[in-house]
Amino acid sequence: MTVRILLLFACLWATSASASETERWRVVIDLWGNPVHQTLELNRDGARLSGTLDGDPLTGRAEGAQLRVTATANDRHYHLHGTRDADALMGTADFPDPNQPERRAEHAFTATRLPSRPPGPPRLIDFVPRDYANLFSADRAPVLTIWPGDTVRTRTLDSGGVDEHGVTRALFGNPQVGPFYVDGAEPGDVLAVTLHRLRPNRDHADSLDALVGRAQGLGLATQAGALGKPVRWRLDRVRGIALPPPGSGLDGLTIPLRPMLGGIAVAPGFGFPPMSAGDSGRFGGNMDFNQIVEGTTVYLPVAQPGALLYLGDAHAAQGDGEISQYGLETSMDVEFSVAVIKERALATPRVESATRLMAIGQAGSLDEAVRAATQGLIQWLQQDYRLSLSEASQLLGAAVEYRIITLAGRNAGVAAMLDKTSLATLRASPKRE
Amino acid sequence: MTVRILLLFACLWATSASASETERWRVVIDLWGNPVHQTLELNRDGARLSGTLDGDPLTGRAEGAQLRVTATANDRHYHLHGTRDADALMGTADFPDPNQPERRAEHAFTATRLPSRPPGPPRLIDFVPRDYANLFSADRAPVLTIWPGDTVRTRTLDSGGVDEHGVTRALFGNPQVGPFYVDGAEPGDVLAVTLHRLRPNRDHADSLDALVGRAQGLGLATQAGALGKPVRWRLDRVRGIALPPPGSGLDGLTIPLRPMLGGIAVAPGFGFPPMSAGDSGRFGGNMDFNQIVEGTTVYLPVAQPGALLYLGDAHAAQGDGEISQYGLETSMDVEFSVAVIKERALATPRVESATRLMAIGQAGSLDEAVRAATQGLIQWLQQDYRLSLSEASQLLGAAVEYRIITLAGRNAGVAAMLDKTSLATLRASPKRE
Amino acid sequence: MTVRILLLFACLWATSASASETERWRVVIDLWGNPVHQTLELNRDGARLSGTLDGDPLTGRAEGAQLRVTATANDRHYHLHGTRDADALMGTADFPDPNQPERRAEHAFTATRLPSRPPGPPRLIDFVPRDYANLFSADRAPVLTIWPGDTVRTRTLDSGGVDEHGVTRALFGNPQVGPFYVDGAEPGDVLAVTLHRLRPNRDHADSLDALVGRAQGLGLATQAGALGKPVRWRLDRVRGIALPPPGSGLDGLTIPLRPMLGGIAVAPGFGFPPMSAGDSGRFGGNMDFNQIVEGTTVYLPVAQPGALLYLGDAHAAQGDGEISQYGLETSMDVEFSVAVIKERALATPRVESATRLMAIGQAGSLDEAVRAATQGLIQWLQQDYRLSLSEASQLLGAAVEYRIITLAGRNAGVAAMLDKTSLATLRASPKRE
Amino acid sequence: MTVRILLLFACLWATSASASETERWRVVIDLWGNPVHQTLELNRDGARLSGTLDGDPLTGRAEGAQLRVTATANDRHYHLHGTRDADALMGTADFPDPNQPERRAEHAFTATRLPSRPPGPPRLIDFVPRDYANLFSADRAPVLTIWPGDTVRTRTLDSGGVDEHGVTRALFGNPQVGPFYVDGAEPGDVLAVTLHRLRPNRDHADSLDALVGRAQGLGLATQAGALGKPVRWRLDRVRGIALPPPGSGLDGLTIPLRPMLGGIAVAPGFGFPPMSAGDSGRFGGNMDFNQIVEGTTVYLPVAQPGALLYLGDAHAAQGDGEISQYGLETSMDVEFSVAVIKERALATPRVESATRLMAIGQAGSLDEAVRAATQGLIQWLQQDYRLSLSEASQLLGAAVEYRIITLAGRNAGVAAMLDKTSLATLRASPKRE
Repeated sequence: MTVRILLLFACLWATSASASETERWRVVIDLWGNPVHQTLELNRDGARLSGTLDGDPLTGRAEGAQLRVTATANDRHYHLHGTRDADALMGTADFPDPNQPERRAEHAFTATRLPSRPPGPPRLIDFVPRDYANLFSADRAPVLTIWPGDTVRTRTLDSGGVDEHGVTRALFGNPQVGPFYVDGAEPGDVLAVTLHRLRPNRDHADSLDALVGRAQGLGLATQAGALGKPVRWRLDRVRGIALPPPGSGLDGLTIPLRPMLGGIAVAPGFGFPPMSAGDSGRFGGNMDFNQIVEGTTVYLPVAQPGALLYLGDAHAAQGDGEISQYGLETSMDVEFSVAVIKERALATPRVESATRLMAIGQAGSLDEAVRAATQGLIQWLQQDYRLSLSEASQLLGAAVEYRIITLAGRNAGVAAMLDKTSLATLRASPKRE
Repeated sequence: MTVRILLLFACLWATSASASETERWRVVIDLWGNPVHQTLELNRDGARLSGTLDGDPLTGRAEGAQLRVTATANDRHYHLHGTRDADALMGTADFPDPNQPERRAEHAFTATRLPSRPPGPPRLIDFVPRDYANLFSADRAPVLTIWPGDTVRTRTLDSGGVDEHGVTRALFGNPQVGPFYVDGAEPGDVLAVTLHRLRPNRDHADSLDALVGRAQGLGLATQAGALGKPVRWRLDRVRGIALPPPGSGLDGLTIPLRPMLGGIAVAPGFGFPPMSAGDSGRFGGNMDFNQIVEGTTVYLPVAQPGALLYLGDAHAAQGDGEISQYGLETSMDVEFSVAVIKERALATPRVESATRLMAIGQAGSLDEAVRAATQGLIQWLQQDYRLSLSEASQLLGAAVEYRIITLAGRNAGVAAMLDKTSLATLRASPKRE
Repeated sequence: MTVRILLLFACLWATSASASETERWRVVIDLWGNPVHQTLELNRDGARLSGTLDGDPLTGRAEGAQLRVTATANDRHYHLHGTRDADALMGTADFPDPNQPERRAEHAFTATRLPSRPPGPPRLIDFVPRDYANLFSADRAPVLTIWPGDTVRTRTLDSGGVDEHGVTRALFGNPQVGPFYVDGAEPGDVLAVTLHRLRPNRDHADSLDALVGRAQGLGLATQAGALGKPVRWRLDRVRGIALPPPGSGLDGLTIPLRPMLGGIAVAPGFGFPPMSAGDSGRFGGNMDFNQIVEGTTVYLPVAQPGALLYLGDAHAAQGDGEISQYGLETSMDVEFSVAVIKERALATPRVESATRLMAIGQAGSLDEAVRAATQGLIQWLQQDYRLSLSEASQLLGAAVEYRIITLAGRNAGVAAMLDKTSLATLRASPKRE
Repeated sequence: MTVRILLLFACLWATSASASETERWRVVIDLWGNPVHQTLELNRDGARLSGTLDGDPLTGRAEGAQLRVTATANDRHYHLHGTRDADALMGTADFPDPNQPERRAEHAFTATRLPSRPPGPPRLIDFVPRDYANLFSADRAPVLTIWPGDTVRTRTLDSGGVDEHGVTRALFGNPQVGPFYVDGAEPGDVLAVTLHRLRPNRDHADSLDALVGRAQGLGLATQAGALGKPVRWRLDRVRGIALPPPGSGLDGLTIPLRPMLGGIAVAPGFGFPPMSAGDSGRFGGNMDFNQIVEGTTVYLPVAQPGALLYLGDAHAAQGDGEISQYGLETSMDVEFSVAVIKERALATPRVESATRLMAIGQAGSLDEAVRAATQGLIQWLQQDYRLSLSEASQLLGAAVEYRIITLAGRNAGVAAMLDKTSLATLRASPKRE
């Protein structure tokens, strides 16, 4: 079998809670060795429990530390019973066998209490990472819980795991900061991440003189074998330029710094394994898009409770396609804030700048990636500008811009982009939250 | 067999000429039904003839209207004898059988005298087309002979064959003006065509609301069947904008005019058939690249004597990819001049603007087209900026821009582009003619 | 504009005919330099003419050698008048301007009388070619008119134009025998060509040691540059094997002869240019499919009156993909017969053997070719076995076989194949003519 | 950065061992949260220790339960010290910082003692799985240690996690049996798995009536949305056929059973994340190749100590491409044995049957997959038949067969196949271990 769409048979259960207050828990069910993450909301009225699990309604009873609930999804009942203390809950859940509904299977679960939003306005948080993730995964414990509106100041390592002092702090391969648990983000929502500041925090960047396979025509392949050597660029942060190592035919060359974030992701959904920090998909990931720069907002489809935001792998500059396998890899100061758009379908990751809409298509070939990018941009126009497919086609036919994002990863990437000034003159006012 | 590289077995012969003057002839040999075009240079010293055929040396004798010459290529001898009058020459050529060199085969040929360059400075010529070509072909008679430095003012029909008055003047399918015979251009050279002026000469452009197959993801395909309707845009040439037909969700939209030439080509070389005016390749053709605008220079590899330049299919504006199958198709005033760069290898067509180098890759998939574009740009940097492959890879890795040119033809197209300001700071001065 | 589907504005006219007999003519109209081929049927009743042009009804009058008719298609009227003698007809046709219907444009036409079917049973015809075509074109004069049921015995050159005696008879690049005009075949029909005999008629075959670009991974590219040398195989026609040249690591190798026809085509339809004998498409062409062997029937969609069948480029044997650029190229004795299936849609060329259905997909990439092949096979199952799309998907999911046909041409080719024994057990009897 | 090739900075250390005996340990080092698996061989002579870690030489000392060793790779020294008991070892390792070699970083490690080979001939082991893996991972504990020559009898669930009794035993998505630790297999070796028996052990198989995206041409896409329904086939194991559900146009159809193993894998190497049991790569995985049947041997490149063999996802039958997303999914009795070929490079997975060599190419597009398959087959011919690239090209050009393996996964798959009877007649005797 090839698995494309995994339909989670909905899970549900209950927990005790004090008085009539609502408690929220982050639940992990062990489905034959595979952790499933869900949000449990529990209201207690005396011994009676009500609430939701992963959005499905539940009822139950609490007796002392014991609780026993039944939830219902698609006319099927799921039972769970557990024992709680202040911040932890554990027990077993039983589900009908999807192939023999009269049979039931028991699965262990654990849960941790979700914190309440701190009082006051959105916060500005300085977050100093202590360790780094080489996988985009729902199974890694969140490093911080944040709320929509909060702003975080942090710093990323370079793709080799090296910090602003040149010290190796993590394993090479795009180690990421995170995940940040964004309270209130649930599967089906969209996480909007605005990058307020993106600045290299050291004076060099590491790259290669390589040519990735997808860029190598046969005419070059015979010579390309000699490539692949490290190249250390100097970053002149005052003048805002990068300079290649002296002594080559590139002497005199200056490349404007254009700091970008190569990796930005939410955790992949249930049914997807932990993904390499070098991989990409609808969840974002190592997209290596040189238009994800200071001032842009990245939209990603939430697939796990809390979204679980990761970021890393910043580049001081990068050509389209990242065809030398590395951009100008460096450590970076990063400042971002988050927002949650509830229940919004998103075929592809999106990026918005002051002047442009950009839909990102990613697939095993450019020919498929451009289809995904086109579909993503048309979906955006249909959702926010109320255009029909015919109208969107006319507009794109006259004005779309396609850039190749990356040729360097397992996925190739293509961006379909539109100038927002064209859209500003549309009589149909955009539909926006 | 699949034919990729056709090695023309070199042909040669002679002709009489008056006094010691050099004559130049355009020769057509009939190779088993296939016309081969070559240039014959003939010097006469009394009855003795010398010169070249397709660059190969020849010797011979003229007696009255008869001439008999032998040319030599790769140690093989080719004989031809013919009869001439003032401007025409005809006869037979015999070649060794490539598979049985002791056998010889006879082929008829004809030739027409090439004119001499008019005295004086380069000319400005107004050329009014009388008919149009639906094929890019070496076999169509030139409509005009021009010399490097000459400037031509002409006008193109829209892709449907319709002129500035709305009258159909040619068959739909990108009818082209030309071919222009560029004196002195020979296979192995490069033709440089600079577009000095490119202006729509009517007030409407025709397009569709389609989505080409290469842009259609499966999610759109179910709805895309209803598309394909004609859409007539209004061109406001004073304000420099295009407006969609009123009454749709696009009301209020204005697209800036950005006139471009969809078709620009030299005749394909021997071994290639006449190509549809909708096709493309190393010879250029229906590339539909929205960066071929006023002020740019297009470089094409000459594959036939005289280059045989065609142009047509202008668009008032077009998004990348031409994904609605048509751009904003309109008739156009065109002014261009030509130059010839001798003996320059060119892996792909190139376009140069005031600010950018752009190499065009075209192939049956985007994944192959991007390889061709990369190779073309690297070749350019190696030729004109003396960069090594390693240096070119570093530069592209940091600064290349990839745009998708077209998704609408048999070939997909990709442009690899570099900002010339980066290159201007290189210490290695560009090597230029 | 990129031209995909060219809608011929229907043309029509009339001609005189003697008495009440029906005459059939092959008409060529010159549409601004582009020949259009159509069939004219003309019935004469006194001075009154009736009949069809390209299937559209017409009425008119004949006066002496003059005739004047009006035909109607899609509510538009077309007039033509001409002069005839016994076997020729010429004159002018006028059509409304598609963009300004009140304007009319005149186009010259000529026509030649089509012969009547010879009396008696289908014929066995020995046809010795005198010259060969390097293009698949509707514009080449037919070499022979044949009728459904007729069988033709002829011989093809190898792809280099060399005959059974080693003598070069035509230009390299798959020179073809034909075109054969198949009386009664009209656009919208299917031509079925059954290959009764396919035998090499000499004792050697020419090939290369090359690796085409589509087969070259980057790991091989560095070494592949040294390839491309000619390799002459010995054909032992008695033992039915091919042997490589002695003295290499292949000593002792024998490859079973499996003679196949690389090129089989009908003329491409109006709107397509003459296609290189190395190219392929829905019309067939240089498909290089090693399952087109003795005993198979090839189905091609007719796009021009008379179908205009071409064949050539036989191989003594060939691996899938023709990845050494050449198969085992040789001259061949060929015997075939033709049938016409009226008004049958055909998304792709098809091949049928005693045991298998094979639909051929051809496109600029394998990824598109496999889609076309799948669609072609499903269409076949829907047409002839009355399967729904759901049923066809179940069948293919369990039993389809995909072979790569060619990697060597501009198009890549893929075959989707089904064993007919599976289908024989279907209760739903196949719907067959 | 995009990570392609991860160069593990070699790790090393020591451990104590009793007397002069050699001990072997399976070591796991925690590299900033990423487990690295290596094999430690330790010889003890009094207090002096020698041996290897991941093949690198080491020296050290044991004092009581403490041990302290230094290993050397590429002139760099690595220190580790730890504490052991009978079967466990733990401690810290320090490595130089790859970016600042004078700095050193400490990493925790643990190790478990590897068992010795049981005395006697190779064993026949009945293995009943208790749980199943939904990831191909080096981090899952081996379920069994086996030695080259051993044969294992076990059974696989269907891709939905359902066993021979229809009971769900694991999470859908190709749950796998394993991993089996194959003693002696080290990175750089090849694991050969011979499938002696592959038989469905129940009377039904589950499939869909879907068409995967890679098989859907645009012409089908409009109808394909209605597909995707479950289809339960009946397996008649006595007659060896599968029958579709009655009542459709497929009534009467019988498909021969051809049981195959969709998933067979070794653990991916360091630098690759755990891979979904639905994914594939050089490590094998969910290749879904319908030629991996009873009697074949599968060769996979070992990338982790012990190879860590997984298998699952058997199909009763499957067409090429698995284009209905599922094959005929069923539970299966499986019997296999293993062998290890030391130090053999393997560009791609290989399959060998009694009659054929088959190299498997897998990539994000068919166009890349066919290149990988070709390269894999040429490598095989170079290694085992001593052919040069030129000779291999001639052979493939005349005799290769390409089958499409899968269109259903993230990777597309292509097999390049050769008939071994051709090879049997080669004078150059194959070089074989």
